[in-house]
Amino acid sequence: MSRAIKIALIGCGTVGGATATILLNDRALIAERSGIDIEIGAIYTRDFAHARELGIPESLFETDLERILADPEIEVVVELIGGTTDARTIIKRAVAAGKHVVTANKALLAHHGEELWAAARTYGVTIGFEASTGGGIPIIRAIIDGLMANRIDAIYGIVNGTSNYILTRMTQEGTTYDDALSDAQADGLAEADPSLDVQGTDSAHKLAIMASLAFGLKVDFDTIPVSGIDTLESIDVKFGQDLGYVVKLLAVAHRTHEGITLWVRPAFISREHPLAWVSGPFNAVSAYGHATGHTLYYGRGAGGHPTASAVISDISAIALGTLPAIFNNTGYWQDKNLDTRQINVEETNSRFYIRIMAKDQPGVLAEIARIFGIHEISIASMLQPETTEDGEDTLVPIVITTHSCKERDLRAALKAIDSLTTTDNTSVSIPIAEEHPEKFGSDVTTSDSRRFENS
Amino acid sequence: MSRAIKIALIGCGTVGGATATILLNDRALIAERSGIDIEIGAIYTRDFAHARELGIPESLFETDLERILADPEIEVVVELIGGTTDARTIIKRAVAAGKHVVTANKALLAHHGEELWAAARTYGVTIGFEASTGGGIPIIRAIIDGLMANRIDAIYGIVNGTSNYILTRMTQEGTTYDDALSDAQADGLAEADPSLDVQGTDSAHKLAIMASLAFGLKVDFDTIPVSGIDTLESIDVKFGQDLGYVVKLLAVAHRTHEGITLWVRPAFISREHPLAWVSGPFNAVSAYGHATGHTLYYGRGAGGHPTASAVISDISAIALGTLPAIFNNTGYWQDKNLDTRQINVEETNSRFYIRIMAKDQPGVLAEIARIFGIHEISIASMLQPETTEDGEDTLVPIVITTHSCKERDLRAALKAIDSLTTTDNTSVSIPIAEEHPEKFGSDVTTSDSRRFENS
Repeated sequence: MSRAIKIALIGCGTVGGATATILLNDRALIAERSGIDIEIGAIYTRDFAHARELGIPESLFETDLERILADPEIEVVVELIGGTTDARTIIKRAVAAGKHVVTANKALLAHHGEELWAAARTYGVTIGFEASTGGGIPIIRAIIDGLMANRIDAIYGIVNGTSNYILTRMTQEGTTYDDALSDAQADGLAEADPSLDVQGTDSAHKLAIMASLAFGLKVDFDTIPVSGIDTLESIDVKFGQDLGYVVKLLAVAHRTHEGITLWVRPAFISREHPLAWVSGPFNAVSAYGHATGHTLYYGRGAGGHPTASAVISDISAIALGTLPAIFNNTGYWQDKNLDTRQINVEETNSRFYIRIMAKDQPGVLAEIARIFGIHEISIASMLQPETTEDGEDTLVPIVITTHSCKERDLRAALKAIDSLTTTDNTSVSIPIAEEHPEKFGSDVTTSDSRRFENS
Repeated sequence: MSRAIKIALIGCGTVGGATATILLNDRALIAERSGIDIEIGAIYTRDFAHARELGIPESLFETDLERILADPEIEVVVELIGGTTDARTIIKRAVAAGKHVVTANKALLAHHGEELWAAARTYGVTIGFEASTGGGIPIIRAIIDGLMANRIDAIYGIVNGTSNYILTRMTQEGTTYDDALSDAQADGLAEADPSLDVQGTDSAHKLAIMASLAFGLKVDFDTIPVSGIDTLESIDVKFGQDLGYVVKLLAVAHRTHEGITLWVRPAFISREHPLAWVSGPFNAVSAYGHATGHTLYYGRGAGGHPTASAVISDISAIALGTLPAIFNNTGYWQDKNLDTRQINVEETNSRFYIRIMAKDQPGVLAEIARIFGIHEISIASMLQPETTEDGEDTLVPIVITTHSCKERDLRAALKAIDSLTTTDNTSVSIPIAEEHPEKFGSDVTTSDSRRFENS
């Protein structure tokens, strides 16, 4: 055992409680493996009920945050209260007090990462945040350490377990969105207010963190287009399945010649796609590097124990000096980097699934096809399922898949189609994400890759 | 850019050539990302033909290994020649000369890891070997860094791309083993002599490396039971598929109360198993931790660029000091650890697929069932496919799946069945590997986990 370190836990909910439990139960195991003897010096939280339930010794309870910040023996402050106000203040104060920080706070880092890295640099400390993204999956380390030799060209993530659980139920069992959400809430997989999860914001937070590190660029969170699964209809899940697709809430960032495109939204992927099998509350992130090609990381993206695993690995890595060495020397960090040129997703190309509700009248299909043609969108397949209802005013679904087209053109076409008297103005479009190609050693950006002179 | 480091490459084949190419083409990119400016000081190889083909500057060619070992500017020796004789000597000499080593040599580490770690410790240097296992997948880092807070209970790997490619062809296209192997050789996915790959030895090398780190124990390579895919018959692949299984060459290590069980062999897994989708030359490794639960790492397990990605990440990590900090402080290393108590796989339990070729006579099924009963093996399913041939001496396949049973009992039963006059003495048995259970915080070994006192 090479080094002892004393920490304070701020927050003792699901993740804080699991972190405390593991550190108390398995202190010897962790010391044996990591070489670091981690001692909890204090636990600060608004409400000690959960800590008491877990049987955590009351001698560790601290009600005065100032005493923690002033205690020179405490080297690491672990922030697990979440939110972007108190947490931000506490982290900044801890850093200013010369303490390293470990946090699981994705919202805070997505919005204020740059400010926090800069503060940490000023005071010579390090902020660990493996737990912010992908729960127990060591995905941050993969990006900043394992894939160090790569120009990363793309990140594709399923990074919200609540949404993936709901989509899995809808896909595999035909459950409605509302029923699947209720079940998720009953099972503790969704919060009472699930907005951050099901509307895609949580995924976007994680995407922003991963993308800024992967590309070594500042990411402007507010310009990331985000939509969630809360408006997804069962009928589209079903039609997509008939076409060989499954729907996933994807968080995507990829590099093009013009800049970086980031988006979060439900997308169809083929059943053969490497992310198609990721089911239930599990998360997975694909990273495409110019040396390593496709690599994928999978595991539990939330929950007390998995997230605590990431928290504790950061504490150990700070004590070992490995995380500080990476933070102090590598070029991934937003406070050191240039602004990203973020490309509006409407300027990018994709295939799309489209559903239009149209009157069952002669000439309607032709009119829709004509509008796609005007906007230079090539139709890959078109299906009007047979209906038992009849009457010229009955609305029937028309399901179309397109070849790759510019999204802006698609929006224009759908606007025109929605304004037809024969449709009901509710067209649905879902991107079809194909597997990202591996590009070994190829030159995607001119600035990143230089030819060597043959002597 | 914080630190420059000069290295020597020993070997310039597929991996050495890709490493040189990336370091020469992308030196600025890697310096920007990792903070390390990596300069190739010399390339030593028996034959410079491949290096010339790649356009590597001849000024780097070095024909005298002694000059490299004596050059004080060279801090890292990258061994990429393979084999366990010359490579072993070169690594030991480099270490003794005070140079760090990076290697992709799984055979050498599986057999002589303990000796090499001890030598590195003696001379105060570090050996990086991310490239030895899983090619471009940062699986070694996951085990020694990302999962630091976990007691790892099991490793399940598909770690030989050649075998997985052949099995994928056999499964998805009904190709015979011989044809799939020929295609793999034509595509550069199998060597002219594929024995190390298809007989399972390469997988066992990687398993030994991962298991010793994951469990923090010495592993005795020679007692790992290993069988490969070279004796697998198409008929069993097909019958397994009919039962809902796919066959994979699995490398498995798991912890029990009594010790560690390790094995490499073809096994059936359910189509829903998290490793079932891993196709073609790709590799994947599942690690089950007591905090993080199931995590899985996927990517290209071989090939120049992916393996070079791992090599270069190790060079950077040595220059950053992160790999030395881990090597010097953590408890994973064979030279620091106790011998493993390796449990003979025959003493463990598994489900099995069995195929027996038996005469199509009355009473044969009953006799086989009776023998299973005597050995306390419970049959889960039994199938005698209809045959168009007839005659009492025609041999027909009888396909049986068992419930979980002790492998030793199964061997005894099959020995008795093979000696019947109604069978042809060629029974086939393939384990059916179920998904390893996640055990959060549970107590698998008594020594690893301690309860804390509630004060």
